[in-house]
Amino acid sequence: MRYSFDELISFCTELFCAAGIRDEHALIAAQRLVEADLRGRSGHGLIRVAPYLERIRAGGIDRYAQPRVIRETAASAHIDGGNGLGQVVMTMAVELAVAKAAEAGIAVVGTVNSNHAGAAGLYPAMAARHGMAGIYLAVANANGMPPWGGTDPVLGPNPISIAVPSADGPPFLLDIATTAASHGAIKVARQAGRPLPVGWVADREGGPITDPDRADEGFLLPIGGYKGSGLTIAVGLLAGVLNGAAFGHDVVDHRTNPSTPTNTGQLFIALRADAFRPLETVLADVAEHLRALRESGSQSGDPLRLPGDQAAHLEEEYLRDSLPIAPAVRDALNTEAARANIPRRL
Amino acid sequence: MRYSFDELISFCTELFCAAGIRDEHALIAAQRLVEADLRGRSGHGLIRVAPYLERIRAGGIDRYAQPRVIRETAASAHIDGGNGLGQVVMTMAVELAVAKAAEAGIAVVGTVNSNHAGAAGLYPAMAARHGMAGIYLAVANANGMPPWGGTDPVLGPNPISIAVPSADGPPFLLDIATTAASHGAIKVARQAGRPLPVGWVADREGGPITDPDRADEGFLLPIGGYKGSGLTIAVGLLAGVLNGAAFGHDVVDHRTNPSTPTNTGQLFIALRADAFRPLETVLADVAEHLRALRESGSQSGDPLRLPGDQAAHLEEEYLRDSLPIAPAVRDALNTEAARANIPRRL
Repeated sequence: MRYSFDELISFCTELFCAAGIRDEHALIAAQRLVEADLRGRSGHGLIRVAPYLERIRAGGIDRYAQPRVIRETAASAHIDGGNGLGQVVMTMAVELAVAKAAEAGIAVVGTVNSNHAGAAGLYPAMAARHGMAGIYLAVANANGMPPWGGTDPVLGPNPISIAVPSADGPPFLLDIATTAASHGAIKVARQAGRPLPVGWVADREGGPITDPDRADEGFLLPIGGYKGSGLTIAVGLLAGVLNGAAFGHDVVDHRTNPSTPTNTGQLFIALRADAFRPLETVLADVAEHLRALRESGSQSGDPLRLPGDQAAHLEEEYLRDSLPIAPAVRDALNTEAARANIPRRL
Repeated sequence: MRYSFDELISFCTELFCAAGIRDEHALIAAQRLVEADLRGRSGHGLIRVAPYLERIRAGGIDRYAQPRVIRETAASAHIDGGNGLGQVVMTMAVELAVAKAAEAGIAVVGTVNSNHAGAAGLYPAMAARHGMAGIYLAVANANGMPPWGGTDPVLGPNPISIAVPSADGPPFLLDIATTAASHGAIKVARQAGRPLPVGWVADREGGPITDPDRADEGFLLPIGGYKGSGLTIAVGLLAGVLNGAAFGHDVVDHRTNPSTPTNTGQLFIALRADAFRPLETVLADVAEHLRALRESGSQSGDPLRLPGDQAAHLEEEYLRDSLPIAPAVRDALNTEAARANIPRRL
């Protein structure tokens, strides 16, 4: 099933509007969700629309929310998301951070009372389009991993995304969970009926779980043992606790609890690429280093792919042709349309 | 061999002064090195004095360097380290970032023409003592890891350190290399005659190397496969390329090349813990979350140790009693004293 970028955004916007979300927020959320599919991050794309709508109906997300700045300096801001859609809150956060960093060189914007904001990489990518590096940290909306050496799954796969703009070619764009696998990646594997790689999920005795339907019985594993566990906590403190948002035992599992606000926290840092040196020089140097890395020796003989390359490649291909949407995702969207008495179908 | 904190700093300061380093810089470098030993990070402690002195004699480090700010805004600064000792450059960078963040909420300081600055965690810990979170990124002074899927070791174990202050107990303090092991950790294992754990170093076919004396024949392995590889590149771009410092193929191996300046780059971000909420509330919330994590279920039955806990525990013990220094390190320091015609010995 393939659809054009614009068609998917328009359809998704209509679904959110029908749910009572104001037009401009519906469009922003739809754009961020379809952009995730566009960049091959389907675990954070349109697959999320039905769960979001369920949360709105159950009261877990406020359809009428208006995010607002509740504290502000020249280089920082705190946004109360009002329990609105995370994509709307984070888009506002990035735009504000970029505007402040343009003046101050660096800026930080934190969010409280936000929600799941989808594909982490979208937000630093927005900064990169303004000639800035972007760093995005967020508290994941479901736990599933103990601290290293522990047995209580009080930590989640908190994401880290970092973008650095380049003079040519796609920006460098890292988008990772601090666990070996995210809940989204497990969900995609489950929907595709694919077994989980060893190292993604462990049972309570440490043995591997590879059946995606049994993933919830076990623990997510961090990257690099205590290192990934520590990174997850660092992200949780910076994006959650500094903001007054949920972390640790306060995290609301948005997969199983549709009615309780998640109080999601996110932290975004925008840093002008020319904070230290002229922009043109920096961007040319980044491009040269990325080129050298891509062309360095490769096990397969093909040029190496760097973080962001595959997403940029898919984006180009899907914008030219159309985006593949899984039948189950299409069906879920069509079911939502029927429920909202929208005649349109994908 | 155990010595008091003050005795070690005094002896190390004398060695640096004898090498021609100005008094105040010698003291700062000695403090940072002994602090590393104090916190159990002996791979970045006094073990480094002899190699630093060798670099100074060979012209690889400028003993007369005076780091200076070459570009500055209210929330950012660029420091040219003048090829001085990295500990001196980074101490200046942190102090400047903390002073700027106190006004602006967040601040970034980058370095160029710096050098190896020792234990990464020391610098965010300085920010934490001022009620700020600190983020330190640096380009390692030796490569040894290919990009994921690659065969040319053009990347290094670039460190990431993040501190978040707490109302009581030690601050959260993550200090990790983006590789499974750092060169320093391998050096410590080699000096102790301990085999390397599987997963630290791979040979060119991907098989494990566990003999520490054979580590240089292989590649360092990243944490989390492509994720750690991507983190290393992100750190290299932010701390190296933005600053105009070395990254990738430009990195000078300070272990084998004592005479060429390394042009090390570092990036430090200071973020007021009260950027978004009152300080007392934030610090109390951090303390409560850290306590809850420490007291969550444990595989061993003992309370869990979080990043920074072990270092804080050692610091307390060693300050009360004295620091253990390995005989080989003591001998190297005494050899340097003899070479400098300093009568004093450890």
